[in-house]
Amino acid sequence: MRIAVDAMGGDLAPRAAVQGALLAALEEDVSILLVGDREIVEDEIEKLGASPESVEVVHAPETVGMDEPATAVRRKRRSSLAVCAELVRDGRAAAMVTAGNSGAAMVAAKLLIGAVPGVDRPALAAVFPNRRGRTVVLDVGANVDSRAEHLRQFAVMGHYYAREVIGTSRPRIGLLSIGEEHVKGNDLVRDAHAALAATGLNFVGNVEGGDVFSGSVDVVVCDGFVGNVLLKSTEGMAELVVGMVREELLRNSRTRFGGWLARPAFANFARRTDYAEYGAVPLLGVAGGCFIGHGRSNARAVRNAVRRAVEFGRADVAARIRAKLAELAAAGGPLAADAGA
Amino acid sequence: MRIAVDAMGGDLAPRAAVQGALLAALEEDVSILLVGDREIVEDEIEKLGASPESVEVVHAPETVGMDEPATAVRRKRRSSLAVCAELVRDGRAAAMVTAGNSGAAMVAAKLLIGAVPGVDRPALAAVFPNRRGRTVVLDVGANVDSRAEHLRQFAVMGHYYAREVIGTSRPRIGLLSIGEEHVKGNDLVRDAHAALAATGLNFVGNVEGGDVFSGSVDVVVCDGFVGNVLLKSTEGMAELVVGMVREELLRNSRTRFGGWLARPAFANFARRTDYAEYGAVPLLGVAGGCFIGHGRSNARAVRNAVRRAVEFGRADVAARIRAKLAELAAAGGPLAADAGA
Repeated sequence: MRIAVDAMGGDLAPRAAVQGALLAALEEDVSILLVGDREIVEDEIEKLGASPESVEVVHAPETVGMDEPATAVRRKRRSSLAVCAELVRDGRAAAMVTAGNSGAAMVAAKLLIGAVPGVDRPALAAVFPNRRGRTVVLDVGANVDSRAEHLRQFAVMGHYYAREVIGTSRPRIGLLSIGEEHVKGNDLVRDAHAALAATGLNFVGNVEGGDVFSGSVDVVVCDGFVGNVLLKSTEGMAELVVGMVREELLRNSRTRFGGWLARPAFANFARRTDYAEYGAVPLLGVAGGCFIGHGRSNARAVRNAVRRAVEFGRADVAARIRAKLAELAAAGGPLAADAGA
Repeated sequence: MRIAVDAMGGDLAPRAAVQGALLAALEEDVSILLVGDREIVEDEIEKLGASPESVEVVHAPETVGMDEPATAVRRKRRSSLAVCAELVRDGRAAAMVTAGNSGAAMVAAKLLIGAVPGVDRPALAAVFPNRRGRTVVLDVGANVDSRAEHLRQFAVMGHYYAREVIGTSRPRIGLLSIGEEHVKGNDLVRDAHAALAATGLNFVGNVEGGDVFSGSVDVVVCDGFVGNVLLKSTEGMAELVVGMVREELLRNSRTRFGGWLARPAFANFARRTDYAEYGAVPLLGVAGGCFIGHGRSNARAVRNAVRRAVEFGRADVAARIRAKLAELAAAGGPLAADAGA
């Protein structure tokens, strides 16, 4: 199993990316292609004092900046992002991992790796903590204005990701909707319901925003606009909660001491909910793995993203998605007519 | 100022509703019409031992149950919900407050009170805590599949609610969107942007889900499907966070003691974020006030909802919305053509 890691992507690159990649190489049975400016990357490896045989540097003289438009990657074919995608396309790596410009990473993956046959739109799948484990939500922003057929494809992708990478047997799939009696869902949800029911997957029906965190489902399917709002608003809410609790704890010496004593509890909580613990968000539906980390990814996040990428590659999730979509297209059903659209 | 309170609505009714209404009547310069089964309501008042002169019971022999379909209110014209709405329609109350069946409350308000002229679709406006104060988000579920003109009306409603009831001078209005470089918003957001910019209100442009909690805007405008997902998912996330922190604090005696010492801080935090502190969600755009509380509303939530209703009535928010929409319709602009639709 070989994974391409973008050494130049992210606010903490190249340090965090190189460190995370080396960690993964030491701990896992994986070969790493570290993609970036050879001199900078080799310099960074040298500083860290460890140079595992399973790590190889692949030269990419350009970079796509965090603030550049996503389309910059189209011109920068020698950028670390474009080279990562080409390594996956050419079968030299099973997946790519980057903490760089996420829009550009998506463009590179779609353009250079390409979609799995049967997938119209690759989707970003965020993994949230819930009471019992993890919930996969997709799409969280790769596309907007989805149609029912797209949501059906998202359900298939989410199913295999949850089963093969998160390790959920028989993942329960919910369609994100709203519950007020008088307006059951919207036009899209009404159209998508039958399409999801006909997949043969473990579709449990419509769910609400709160179900993402309750553990009542394992996969939540939605349009990318809605999913992105869900992702960003819950992140914002979590930051507000942490900020407010800290403020209140510091208000007087009793609560300050209490907060100090309770630190291990807060640390455990942070570990359970920390973004870095999960590593990165996969762009599902491309013909290979593409894991996009937070711009602030540290070495641990990069290492964990590589782990996910390895699991993804070992289970050959992309091939399973392709096979299932081919089966659905052959079987016909409510969306057979536009399944190839 | 007279407010109609649904004495029979909510999981804790009639106790919480009657208690909350009496509290408000004692503390505020307001008359209360307590609407419900006369015998039950008078019995409840008697139990509480206080019977302010400013409280009058209005008999309504029927109730709409929490689990009944929203449309049940159409048949139950003598239900507490329907009678509340009629009191507002007939000018006998400036606003109604209920913790009952929220779908039925909306149907009653739309059907019996009716929309403000110029408003196509009344909207539910949730009020979230942010770092500095409060953010109004609308719509959070009264409607789905909105068009740009609806979002423009939501902006007008949110502006006056934030200014007159929350007390924000010159509220900053944001249009909820998503920020990935390559997909700026969706079709609706692209259409609505110009419409909002042309309102003459303090429109600051597109915002993301996280901005609801950062305090960077005062009003966030969105389609009701998206807003409802935002509301429910952040509620679910908050519950998960509280549950996880509690679990971690109870893990050993050190953290348990720390948690005990820190209790005042947690209590302050809870107070700052408690739903009951704000009271209820207004249904804006009906020709009078309609405040819909959580089914679990306690007496404090009902009292606070009555306070909001009083502020709403005093400022005559409905009239201000009507005047502004008339002005926009007369001025023409990007949506003048379908403004009366």
